[in-house]
Amino acid sequence: MIANTPKPPYYAVIFTSIRTEIEEDYNLTAIKMVEMAQEQEGYLGHESAREDLGITVSYWQNLDAIKNWKMNLDHLLAQKLGKSKWYAAYKTRICLVERDYGFDRFL
Amino acid sequence: MIANTPKPPYYAVIFTSIRTEIEEDYNLTAIKMVEMAQEQEGYLGHESAREDLGITVSYWQNLDAIKNWKMNLDHLLAQKLGKSKWYAAYKTRICLVERDYGFDRFL
Repeated sequence: MIANTPKPPYYAVIFTSIRTEIEEDYNLTAIKMVEMAQEQEGYLGHESAREDLGITVSYWQNLDAIKNWKMNLDHLLAQKLGKSKWYAAYKTRICLVERDYGFDRFL
Repeated sequence: MIANTPKPPYYAVIFTSIRTEIEEDYNLTAIKMVEMAQEQEGYLGHESAREDLGITVSYWQNLDAIKNWKMNLDHLLAQKLGKSKWYAAYKTRICLVERDYGFDRFL
């Protein structure tokens, strides 16, 4: 689903990644990290898709919320396993969403 | 491929979409729009993936470059067809990339 974010400004974290072929614990950890992120203070939503490239965008009220989630202990472990096992490469971009607009033919 | 963007700050446009079942001209137009975007002044790169949700992130030097591309005549026509045919819903977010970092096991 398209994330139902509030009126800007708010923050987006764009996480773009290329996977290795190692599947061990990946799906379970990914599901767990989404569940945990959703419980964080300041979490606003997320969107995700993967083909050759994976793109996950999470949305946050402010930089403190992003920093707190980055430093969460379970998330730190997942980040470490991400580097050692699951990802061939990734890039994380911290962004201030200044403006947004959209369209929904059923609204 | 992960876009090889310069040191921040720069801009990102996150385009999240849900497709209709109408395929007519979609793939051809999508390819053409990527080719045209790459020729725009201020274009820095793009990343794209689609599962249930499609996420395309394009990167730009500044807001003027984003505005010029938005107002490009061929792109305006594609946007119009997007609303009338190809997309059930979409959201566009204009973002200032403040910080980025990454990892590549082959670098």
